[in-house]
Amino acid sequence: MDEFKVPATSANLGPGYDTIGMALNLFNKFQVKKRKDNLIKIKVIDKSNNNQILELNPKNDLISIAYQSYFKFIKQKAAGVEIIETMETPLARGLGSSASAIIGGLTAAAIVSGKLIAEKDFIKLAVALEKHPDNVVPALVGGLTINYNCNEDYSYYKINLSQNLSFVLVVPDFELKTKELRAVLPKKINYPDAIFNLSRTALFTAAFINNEFHLLKKAMEDKIHQPYRKRLIEEFDQVIDKAYAWGAYGAALSGAGPTIIAVADKNNEKIAEEMQKPFKAKNIKSSSFILKGCNYNLYEYLKGRQ
Amino acid sequence: MDEFKVPATSANLGPGYDTIGMALNLFNKFQVKKRKDNLIKIKVIDKSNNNQILELNPKNDLISIAYQSYFKFIKQKAAGVEIIETMETPLARGLGSSASAIIGGLTAAAIVSGKLIAEKDFIKLAVALEKHPDNVVPALVGGLTINYNCNEDYSYYKINLSQNLSFVLVVPDFELKTKELRAVLPKKINYPDAIFNLSRTALFTAAFINNEFHLLKKAMEDKIHQPYRKRLIEEFDQVIDKAYAWGAYGAALSGAGPTIIAVADKNNEKIAEEMQKPFKAKNIKSSSFILKGCNYNLYEYLKGRQ
Repeated sequence: MDEFKVPATSANLGPGYDTIGMALNLFNKFQVKKRKDNLIKIKVIDKSNNNQILELNPKNDLISIAYQSYFKFIKQKAAGVEIIETMETPLARGLGSSASAIIGGLTAAAIVSGKLIAEKDFIKLAVALEKHPDNVVPALVGGLTINYNCNEDYSYYKINLSQNLSFVLVVPDFELKTKELRAVLPKKINYPDAIFNLSRTALFTAAFINNEFHLLKKAMEDKIHQPYRKRLIEEFDQVIDKAYAWGAYGAALSGAGPTIIAVADKNNEKIAEEMQKPFKAKNIKSSSFILKGCNYNLYEYLKGRQ
Repeated sequence: MDEFKVPATSANLGPGYDTIGMALNLFNKFQVKKRKDNLIKIKVIDKSNNNQILELNPKNDLISIAYQSYFKFIKQKAAGVEIIETMETPLARGLGSSASAIIGGLTAAAIVSGKLIAEKDFIKLAVALEKHPDNVVPALVGGLTINYNCNEDYSYYKINLSQNLSFVLVVPDFELKTKELRAVLPKKINYPDAIFNLSRTALFTAAFINNEFHLLKKAMEDKIHQPYRKRLIEEFDQVIDKAYAWGAYGAALSGAGPTIIAVADKNNEKIAEEMQKPFKAKNIKSSSFILKGCNYNLYEYLKGRQ
């Protein structure tokens, strides 16, 4: 039996829509056992939901789809396997649970087949399933990544995350539907809003490379997705205000939400507690995580096994 | 008599539309003499054009307009002055000649009045005249700046430019009209193009902070202004190809053009020569500059005089 772990990820982080993502030290663990028959069995234990054992559905089945796509790529028949995912990442909340499933499935296939494909092909398979690179790439290589496409391929630039920094995540107990999330975005962006985001994305990059986190209040502003998507989370502005009131450097939607992420290096517990209050006031349950950035590189681990 | 110099600037640099700009070691020199009467006299000597002495016209008069706006801001009647600008920067080619005139006029006023206003007010006056911050800010503070607005104000993040790097500028001998340049841009941008530029702008920032210039070929790509504006410069793609063929790290339109800028650290003269060939083939005259980044901070100089 083999074991490995895939980190949760937070993407967009304000201005870096479909571009910036980071890995966090909250892990989905995968156990992989070869089977002598050719069956692919996937079991998911949802730790965030009373260890509920999830039945396969199209979303979870991403593990299996990813596993098979890897074998297809290396032109082999998919080997029989049992994969057990112990899931710490809440499902469908903007913390990269689907990216984690995809990277888990691909990694399982790399291990079972004994053939590690090139990193760019690994990423290409992952993006083909996830549709955007900003969760799957940091899930695979760790750190904060700037993700960019090169013709049909995706490449990235990795920035290691300072361990002095904490990420406070508040996860309200409701799911936003992808269809709805897409429907609220306008078809096009005007130049001033695009320029606004270009400047913030550059500033965000500088803040993380040079560890100048005081820049993040400006650098995590966004005009191209949050103003639209926050309409689906009535408490959004209040939650962000609470984070700033208690000394967070920056705060934004995690992925497409509903999770809200704050960056801080003090008052972490207090920030988490206060950010939950606007939800509580509306009788919406929420949970919180106080996490560190994860710089662990799963692809390097796979290379080391070769 | 006082003397100071204002650097030429190159903005946009590919993806950082209205956001990123850098100062270059090509200077417009200003001589400032108080007059006993209240007249404002401006003389411009155009070094790039056979030392032609330019008559005042609305464009050059920016020096005078900026000078007066500074006095208006400090609530004083504008003092009489003679300002002589010796201009090395070619006029209206995308090298920040108007930004230079504005910063020159404001700086002259700071010197003549003896009252230095806060940097953010200085920048605000400059942007009010120039309309965008990405030339006036590096002209004032040097280096490569990420420029971003904060409500009514503009702020910046400065990255010092490595002196190992050269900037090769090819300046074709025709002017692009601002009106035409604006007319070719679409009204809005689609999400994939905006995301393309967000990722490149982040990568560009990382490349300059960490001196990883091999990233610039990807990081200087753009989808929101160059594809439209290059239609006004038929030779654009050929010129860019020449720069890459001779080992440039990256190449893009300087400002709104028609100047094309390449970033390199070898073959500089050859790159300049080759980049001029596509223009030559069409009987378009062009000149070239091989420059270094300028990290000189004029505002700090003014503070030092206080």
